[in-house]
This record gives sequence, C-alpha cells and structure tokens, in this order.
Amino acid sequence: MAETIRIIGIDPGLRRTGWGLLEAQGNNLRFLASGTVTSDGDASLAERLLQLHQGLTAVIEEWSPEEAAVEQTFVNRDATATLKLGQARGIALLVPAQAGLSVAEYSPNAVKKTVIGVGHGDKKQIHMMVKVLMPKARFEGDDAADALAIAICHAHQRTSVVGRLAALGA
Amino acid sequence: MAETIRIIGIDPGLRRTGWGLLEAQGNNLRFLASGTVTSDGDASLAERLLQLHQGLTAVIEEWSPEEAAVEQTFVNRDATATLKLGQARGIALLVPAQAGLSVAEYSPNAVKKTVIGVGHGDKKQIHMMVKVLMPKARFEGDDAADALAIAICHAHQRTSVVGRLAALGA
Repeated sequence: MAETIRIIGIDPGLRRTGWGLLEAQGNNLRFLASGTVTSDGDASLAERLLQLHQGLTAVIEEWSPEEAAVEQTFVNRDATATLKLGQARGIALLVPAQAGLSVAEYSPNAVKKTVIGVGHGDKKQIHMMVKVLMPKARFEGDDAADALAIAICHAHQRTSVVGRLAALGA
Repeated sequence: MAETIRIIGIDPGLRRTGWGLLEAQGNNLRFLASGTVTSDGDASLAERLLQLHQGLTAVIEEWSPEEAAVEQTFVNRDATATLKLGQARGIALLVPAQAGLSVAEYSPNAVKKTVIGVGHGDKKQIHMMVKVLMPKARFEGDDAADALAIAICHAHQRTSVVGRLAALGA
C-alpha cells in the first residue's frame, strides 16, 4: 500500500494568499481543508508580510503537512506588481521551509497540465477539476481553489519521473 | 539631550543581504557593526530564503536594534531578477517586523540624497561619505556599505519632516 502523505499547496499573493491541504495515497486524494490568509492593505508592507507569515505559520501548525508546493509566479510586465508578488512569495516559501518541509515549485502551466490535462485553461475549469478529483473539496474564492490545484499537482508529480520533467516545463 | 536610537539598515539581495548597525543621537552617529548574510546558490529557493531569515534574525537578536530601514528595491527591466529580489526583500522586511521594530523604506535616490547630497552618485562616493560621517565604520563589500548608508539615511530622515517628504521622493 502506498504511503499517505499530507500536502499543503500555496498560491501566494500580498493581498490574499490561498492555501489548500490534502492527503494523497498513491493516486487517491483526500481533501482536508482550504482557506485564504489576507493582509491589511492599510498596514505597512513589513506589517502585511508579517500578517501573511503569522497566518501561514498557524495553518502549518494546525495541519502539520509533510510536503509543500508553491505556485511559481507568473512574471508579468508590470515590474511593481512583480516585486509585490515576489515579496509575498518569499514568505510563502519561507514558512514551510521553517517547519522543515521540502518545498516544490510548479509553474501555472504545469499545474494546469496536471489538473485539467492541458497547459491552458481558465479558472472555472480548474475549479471544476478540483471538484472532480476531490468531490469533498470545499473552497471559497480563486486563491484557495488554485492552492488545492497546486497541491493536487504535487501529489501527482512527486511520484513520477515524467511528472518531475513536466514540472520543469519540459 | 536627544534620545539615542539604535538603527539597523538592510540592503536586500538573494545572494547577499547587507546589514549595518549604528546608534544615532540627534545628528551624532556611532558605528556599531556591519556584515553580509549570504545564501547558498546551490540550495533550493525556499532553503536560501530560510538561510537569509536565520542570518538576519541572528543579527537582530545579537544587536537588538530599535528601528529598521530597508532599501526600496530598484525595479529594473528584468522581471526574473525583480522577482528574485522581491523574494529576498520580503525576508528583509519580515525579520525586523517579527522583532517588533518599525520598518522604514527608502529609495536608492533618497539614500544618495541624504548621504552624498545629490540623488545620483556611484558606490565609491557612498563608501567615502559613510566613512566621513562615521570615521570608525568598518565594512567589507558594497552590500554592507549600502546597508550602513540606508541606516544613516534613516537616522537623518526620522527626525525631520522635510526628510520624510524627501524619502517619499518629493
């Protein structure tokens, strides 16, 4: 029987960072929880990053995942937005590393390929496939759904060499 | 007599994050220490951010600064570099916030205006002025020198309303 592994997926963002937790046993997936950590837009940047850090740390303490997967940021043309996202992403990578978890990274395309079968697709398709793959999944909003999709992607990729290549964008 | 305040300046970077500590009493500046926290280029991104977090946390624990100042990243045209810097910068802002410090941000131009009197100037001029303003300052490398310049900038700006406007780039 395949080992059971508890995975947290994280979709980083300064305003909202989504998280999703599942247990994988081979190809069997079991939904555990999902949610969104938010930061106060009126607070200083340092304070907002601290809020994200505290929120994610609390989730990891509550659920004790064994592996983490974080979405590789889409580098867009707006440098200011890229920088903001980078700062939030730094926190999303740090928190699981502080808890001693290995942290995998997947590009949005790799996540889509794994979850909906092709590298392109809209939010709706991802939401639908998350529900197909884990009928008991509950999520509010895109960020939590995306985080669950990232966790699903990791559950599939971690067991296959082909998957590891796909994660690299090959 | 003006209060004495201990300030840490941080110049964030994924490979090397510079830090510099001083004590300011009005316009009097006293050098305390400077250094560079590095991350292992062969490690995973999450691991590297953890190394920066641990290094900066150790510095703050050792020196107990009361206020922090972090350089506002220059947003360049290379989105990948901007993202990397953003991730390191997230850590540089988080660590002092975790220690309960207020964290000010200054643009490179604001730092130059304060330290060398004009908004443009090269590294050599900054190094020279750091030595003029704090003859006992010791630093190895640009990152530590820049971090001291950021701390000097904050020491000057925090006491003046005019300075606060300058920090905003006005």
